[in-house]
Amino acid sequence: MAVAEISDLRKYCLETAQRARGASAELASLASGRKIAWLKRAAELLRSGQSELAEANALDLAAAPQFALTAAQIDRLRLAPSAVEAMAVGLEEIAALPEPIGEVIDSSIRPNGLEVLKVRVPLGVMFFIYESRPNVTADAAAICVKSGNAVILRGGKEAVHSNRAIVALLEQAADEVGLPSGAVQFVNTIDREAVGQFLALDKYIDVAIPRGGESLIRRVAAEAKMPVIKHFTGNCHVYVDRSADLAMAERITVNAKCQRMGVCNAAESLVVHRDVAPVFLPRVAKALAQRNIELRGDGRTRSLVPQAKVASEDDFATEYLGPILSIKVVDSIEEAVDHINRYGSHHTDAVVTADLNAARMFVTAVDSAAVIVNASTRFNDGAEFGLGAEIGISTDKFHARGPCGIKELTSYKYVVYGAGQVRE
Amino acid sequence: MAVAEISDLRKYCLETAQRARGASAELASLASGRKIAWLKRAAELLRSGQSELAEANALDLAAAPQFALTAAQIDRLRLAPSAVEAMAVGLEEIAALPEPIGEVIDSSIRPNGLEVLKVRVPLGVMFFIYESRPNVTADAAAICVKSGNAVILRGGKEAVHSNRAIVALLEQAADEVGLPSGAVQFVNTIDREAVGQFLALDKYIDVAIPRGGESLIRRVAAEAKMPVIKHFTGNCHVYVDRSADLAMAERITVNAKCQRMGVCNAAESLVVHRDVAPVFLPRVAKALAQRNIELRGDGRTRSLVPQAKVASEDDFATEYLGPILSIKVVDSIEEAVDHINRYGSHHTDAVVTADLNAARMFVTAVDSAAVIVNASTRFNDGAEFGLGAEIGISTDKFHARGPCGIKELTSYKYVVYGAGQVRE
Repeated sequence: MAVAEISDLRKYCLETAQRARGASAELASLASGRKIAWLKRAAELLRSGQSELAEANALDLAAAPQFALTAAQIDRLRLAPSAVEAMAVGLEEIAALPEPIGEVIDSSIRPNGLEVLKVRVPLGVMFFIYESRPNVTADAAAICVKSGNAVILRGGKEAVHSNRAIVALLEQAADEVGLPSGAVQFVNTIDREAVGQFLALDKYIDVAIPRGGESLIRRVAAEAKMPVIKHFTGNCHVYVDRSADLAMAERITVNAKCQRMGVCNAAESLVVHRDVAPVFLPRVAKALAQRNIELRGDGRTRSLVPQAKVASEDDFATEYLGPILSIKVVDSIEEAVDHINRYGSHHTDAVVTADLNAARMFVTAVDSAAVIVNASTRFNDGAEFGLGAEIGISTDKFHARGPCGIKELTSYKYVVYGAGQVRE
Repeated sequence: MAVAEISDLRKYCLETAQRARGASAELASLASGRKIAWLKRAAELLRSGQSELAEANALDLAAAPQFALTAAQIDRLRLAPSAVEAMAVGLEEIAALPEPIGEVIDSSIRPNGLEVLKVRVPLGVMFFIYESRPNVTADAAAICVKSGNAVILRGGKEAVHSNRAIVALLEQAADEVGLPSGAVQFVNTIDREAVGQFLALDKYIDVAIPRGGESLIRRVAAEAKMPVIKHFTGNCHVYVDRSADLAMAERITVNAKCQRMGVCNAAESLVVHRDVAPVFLPRVAKALAQRNIELRGDGRTRSLVPQAKVASEDDFATEYLGPILSIKVVDSIEEAVDHINRYGSHHTDAVVTADLNAARMFVTAVDSAAVIVNASTRFNDGAEFGLGAEIGISTDKFHARGPCGIKELTSYKYVVYGAGQVRE
């Protein structure tokens, strides 16, 4: 179970990528039932492999101090029985999703009788680079394979033993059900240089997907020769319009900020129309104070909420991922939209309003992956949107935007049926 | 009408890109009617501006010898009245396409009552780099604006006066109908360095689209910091299966090879099942000889068609774009598929067969943007597939594959309507 000593890293990465490419050609036309069988068998093996997983996980937990992990990070590293069960259930849920490959997305009959079908196909080979949490390993492998892609998994060094043990069970399931060997591979070294090697192999790898902190994503985006599905920061806003139901606005603001603070779709900033600010701000400030949220506001906010600290330009551009909220009072919905488009990160922004025109204007003009009317920003999530599992939330516009589920890991081809037609 | 002398190229490119970004924000929510009015007015101005266009075109034609253009290239450069009329009609056809922006692509009602809509939005700012033909200028501008994007047009130096004159008319139409200024801009210098400047401005430009020879596309792909929609070579195949109707196979082969030879979806290679090769190859060779097509075949081909030259490995990997066809005889459809996936360019490949299983196997296993059963490869085209106008044919799998029409230049956002929902 030890991490391999790899004498020729370049060769190792090349051969891994080539194996993935070979597997992807088989996966593209693999019967749906084979993929489902693999997911179900992998779930069984995770459950029955509890003790091996716990053993491997103990090695990572023992090594955690040497990586200077925080208590929260160590907690995320822990593979408790409940976490293993959740992984297994996750695989079963992905097994139950409709088969994406071969779906006819669109079709038309042309005047000359040609039947033109747009058919969903896999992208090919995914290189998935992630940090810390070992449960991501099973999840990412399952999503990639369900969508017909081969995947090369590169987890964080802190979780390498746990990840290795999980992949060993996924590989065993693959052997048993006849999934192509090389469909799921684990980068069995913690050498950082391996990432650079894979990112240069655009001949064999179709897409790189980094999931982790901003520096990881920037590194991958800068080095990758293949397309990257990026997930940058979530500096999310709640805008309370002049026509808002203030009880609803309070409930949504508190939920968006407090329900889970360390995640990308939590609110980091509150924008309030001046007409309701005098009533709403003291009220929501009280509710947030009870949850120990620090407030940082502009001048008008501080005149209404004296305990609020001064918000700087930087505050409005910051994803706190913690118990701080920036607040801005605006003269109009147009000013709110400008503020959000300027300081936000185009991830998730909500408006609370009873005014139809305001809602329509906001959802059109705010340039974000998800714009939400009268609900919490926390709903921007693959499961909440009904996509099934997700591999991340894209902050790009190209190819995939917002939650990336199995369909976002696919492409399409045109399949045309004729009866001998030629062009004149 | 002269090309500008630009003293500070870096500043010029930056300001051009910033203007495009500003325009794109307005374009994203511009009323459909305004875009239609622009397209129709631009068509009128092209028609009434014939003499200005002819004057500018004459400058390019006069300069053509200094660029060592071939007769065919000079022909493509010429803006005859019929070419101007075709441009105008092209704009009117794009005006008539359904509005893509705001279309609800998908929707669902979640168990908690949230209404989740996936709504089509523009990508933002396009940088379009193309060679030679001036009619592409109007076409590309129209497709970009119809899909709500601002566009920066960089044409070839050979056509700079013609392109400049066309864009002047497009800008005049924009002024008249109130299209945002900066929606359509022309790079008014032939300095090659301008391309590099724009390709670094990923803060303002969302997508680069090169259209031209392979070296242009490779340069753009290598330098661009933003995503690139690439159109590499079209090494397209016709495979004649053992069960093919040989009259149909001959018609399709001749059409795919000869109907227009200099285009990406023309056939470059013929693959024939051994069972029909003795009858089919001499027959099709005769038809191709009448059209002065040079044949280059493997050993089995040459034993059946003595006039065929020897095909090398390189021949099978070559996009001739001219009167040459490579030929290979195979033992099975599996060998044909392997050959096509190995030597082809994943662009367009056709099978001629009467066998349902063979057709299904071929369309699944051949990894190309378009796979065509019993029709000519020449049908892989935006207009033929019913997409309306196209800006190119993508050989990528990421984001867009095959013909790129107005929808392929869009992204989407999630728009969510609630009634106060929060996450538990």
